Amino acid sequence: MLDVTTGAHDALSQALARSAVAREGKVSDFLAWFTDFRVRAYTTVERMPLHAIDGWKRDAGTGELRHRSGQFFSVKGLAVESPDQCWNQPIIHQPEVGILGILIKDFDGVPHLLMQAKVEPGNRNGLQLSPTVQATRSNYTGVHRGRAVPYLEYFQRTPSRRVVADVRQSEQGSWFYRKRNRNMIVQVNEEIEVRDGFRWLTLGEIHDLLAEEDLVNMDARTVLSCLPFAGLGVERGFGAGRNSFQAALLRSLDAHSGALSTEREIQSWVTEARTRCELRTRWTPLRGLSGWHDTADAMVHDSGRFFSVIGVQVTAGGREVTSWGQPMIEPYGTGVIAFLVREFDGVLHVLVRAREEVGFSDAVELGPTVQCVPENYDVLPAGARPRFLDDVLGADPERIRFDSVLSEEGGRFFHALNRYMIVETDTDVARDDPDFRWMAVHQLAALLRHSHYLNVQARSLVACLHSLVAGGITGTTGPHAAR
Amino acid sequence: MLDVTTGAHDALSQALARSAVAREGKVSDFLAWFTDFRVRAYTTVERMPLHAIDGWKRDAGTGELRHRSGQFFSVKGLAVESPDQCWNQPIIHQPEVGILGILIKDFDGVPHLLMQAKVEPGNRNGLQLSPTVQATRSNYTGVHRGRAVPYLEYFQRTPSRRVVADVRQSEQGSWFYRKRNRNMIVQVNEEIEVRDGFRWLTLGEIHDLLAEEDLVNMDARTVLSCLPFAGLGVERGFGAGRNSFQAALLRSLDAHSGALSTEREIQSWVTEARTRCELRTRWTPLRGLSGWHDTADAMVHDSGRFFSVIGVQVTAGGREVTSWGQPMIEPYGTGVIAFLVREFDGVLHVLVRAREEVGFSDAVELGPTVQCVPENYDVLPAGARPRFLDDVLGADPERIRFDSVLSEEGGRFFHALNRYMIVETDTDVARDDPDFRWMAVHQLAALLRHSHYLNVQARSLVACLHSLVAGGITGTTGPHAAR
Repeated sequence: MLDVTTGAHDALSQALARSAVAREGKVSDFLAWFTDFRVRAYTTVERMPLHAIDGWKRDAGTGELRHRSGQFFSVKGLAVESPDQCWNQPIIHQPEVGILGILIKDFDGVPHLLMQAKVEPGNRNGLQLSPTVQATRSNYTGVHRGRAVPYLEYFQRTPSRRVVADVRQSEQGSWFYRKRNRNMIVQVNEEIEVRDGFRWLTLGEIHDLLAEEDLVNMDARTVLSCLPFAGLGVERGFGAGRNSFQAALLRSLDAHSGALSTEREIQSWVTEARTRCELRTRWTPLRGLSGWHDTADAMVHDSGRFFSVIGVQVTAGGREVTSWGQPMIEPYGTGVIAFLVREFDGVLHVLVRAREEVGFSDAVELGPTVQCVPENYDVLPAGARPRFLDDVLGADPERIRFDSVLSEEGGRFFHALNRYMIVETDTDVARDDPDFRWMAVHQLAALLRHSHYLNVQARSLVACLHSLVAGGITGTTGPHAAR
Repeated sequence: MLDVTTGAHDALSQALARSAVAREGKVSDFLAWFTDFRVRAYTTVERMPLHAIDGWKRDAGTGELRHRSGQFFSVKGLAVESPDQCWNQPIIHQPEVGILGILIKDFDGVPHLLMQAKVEPGNRNGLQLSPTVQATRSNYTGVHRGRAVPYLEYFQRTPSRRVVADVRQSEQGSWFYRKRNRNMIVQVNEEIEVRDGFRWLTLGEIHDLLAEEDLVNMDARTVLSCLPFAGLGVERGFGAGRNSFQAALLRSLDAHSGALSTEREIQSWVTEARTRCELRTRWTPLRGLSGWHDTADAMVHDSGRFFSVIGVQVTAGGREVTSWGQPMIEPYGTGVIAFLVREFDGVLHVLVRAREEVGFSDAVELGPTVQCVPENYDVLPAGARPRFLDDVLGADPERIRFDSVLSEEGGRFFHALNRYMIVETDTDVARDDPDFRWMAVHQLAALLRHSHYLNVQARSLVACLHSLVAGGITGTTGPHAAR
């Protein structure tokens, strides 16, 4: 028999909805387990001058930073030209596609996700909650000569019926040159040994943890955003705590709800933005990069802003002690990454921005309403401030639905913190604004089945939106209620 | 009110179905008009040595061919590495995104498409049937200093409600480096002056003309493939001529029909193929390119096969005489581009191949079952022959549903002819074959709403498939019946 896909998808969505309302343990139980693991999995990170990073060398000619094996990644110079401005910047070049994967398994009809407590050198707090597998290709093809990646076998040669999601997605386009990782969610039925540092959690438990500061890492958030979570059936499980914001969000998750713009109109808007984009990039030597200079141990922008390239020496504890050096990007300031949201005809819409970033594979992706580091604009005239930044920062606290400081990828970025926010608004934009569109969440979900539509910051916010269906700051079962 | 998109789409599909069964004139009327225009719009094309092309120069260092204005396109050298083989080749670099656009207008409830009789220097027969607008960015921003592009204004700043399709799609990945054109279909309601060389045609008339040898050009075919043509309602208009092949095709066009693989399974297959692809490319000097040599007037492969880079001087007649020189790619041999098709549970499926081509933006796109120049394999051992080539070439004539020699882009390719075929088969492939999948036509249509899934040859075949719904070789109203 031919498979008509919608049925299977609905069943999975309903199972995920059960998972979103299921909370077996208290957040405090989780935190006890997590804290215990943190003590055992200590890591020390020391700064090292760029020229003295263990295992790395700077190219004599170009000044590029490369690992001696030729693997992992390199830091190169990029020259950027657009009709408005030209600049140079260092950028991470990592052409290989890694795997970010989460295993899902039903326990008594409730899907659970296998999550990992993982140490990354760039995490301010060392340990964060990661996907089941978070591995670069160098990791899993053995360039590391380290331990085998646990559970990797479930994400290789996976029978197609077990694949819930499988799509390559971009990462930070300002810091990575055309980096993509494969985001995978795979269902298992068989018994699985839960190794030290791993734990089955319901979607509801993960949603609660998302509201904790700096706990659920970027790799987990991007994979979570690809879950086919339509919120179906959450109403039944949720009951009394539901408010009108959540009702509008549930309707927005439902692919049968209407939206201000049709799929075709959104496609045309994206095509227009990508055709219009005139950002041109080319490689240029990292040594002597105009606008940047070397300090005793780092490469910094002449203004002191944007970001620096630093070196670190990492010593990771656990059963085996391992030690390695690597360059990292250390951003300047704490960013603000926010969706403005508003109901139209009872359906919550998200204000999405078409963003050019130098490292995107395809010129433009859809990003948050606001994505910036406000300090970078402090010295500029008021007209240069990003649109809607003041709507976000000046919002009535009652209309702030999500507000948590979260980190970007701790394997490449050092203390890269952003304040993730979801904020209700009454503001509007012109229907034909070249940069912004109101979209329903199910429209974002449809695009998330394809590569290169939503940038990694927008994907994090989609995961945060899911977390508000049955919890969140104003919910009755969220972490704030539980403590 | 929020727009729930399906309704509008269905209405358009039904109108297009009316257009597919409408034939107002005879093919012979069209050919009389076309022949008349051919006489008035004569073009002469003379071969010129590469070093003597009017307006072009070879870079003193790299040997690259560039226009003196720095615009249009260039011919560069590309070094290609994969785990299996390495080679070098010339390739056309044309980073700007042009517009291929068709205007649609209802006449008495039947949509008509505004088509153009257009001369291109690479066309063996000079004149072919083109979209309303076929313009590079250099064309329409005036680098040409030629006449304004007629009807261009309908494809710029178009109100979104008028846009039927708008998506950037790749072109020949073996000859173009990351070339994309914007494929647009725009509805108009107002009166439109029909200029000399333009004609309103129904979809049915265009479908009949597709079966004519070398008449409907590549740019028209790729835009036609993006039409949201679900074939709804064709059954009523068609009646007696319908056969079981056409019934299976109609079901395949219907998005509510099942398919052997789900959307999710196909996504995962594409992601796996793109992740697995290890084709690496880098620019290398065109001068002294290993494996290639210069003759008195061209650049050719040492084997004499694949393709050559030639120069031409074009003189185009009409009201104003214009003349220009340019390089072109002249392929070796006539290619075979074919879909094998087969019914599963009454729904026609197409056997699609995941193809790596060096010029693709994203490693792999979905192509025809067979896409090759058989002569290139004549000297190789039998095991090197492309899979399914012999199924196509040896097919029972009764099972060949489409068979027409058509040209590729006549603006860049000189006499680039391919035999396009749609062939019924009983053959099958393993469900987990890494390179092939059976897909329903509505699944191809869903991917065609996004960039970089179907290559240009597969898109041409989709347009040919549409033409079989109410006509084609075995139909009763096709061109063969009309003469």
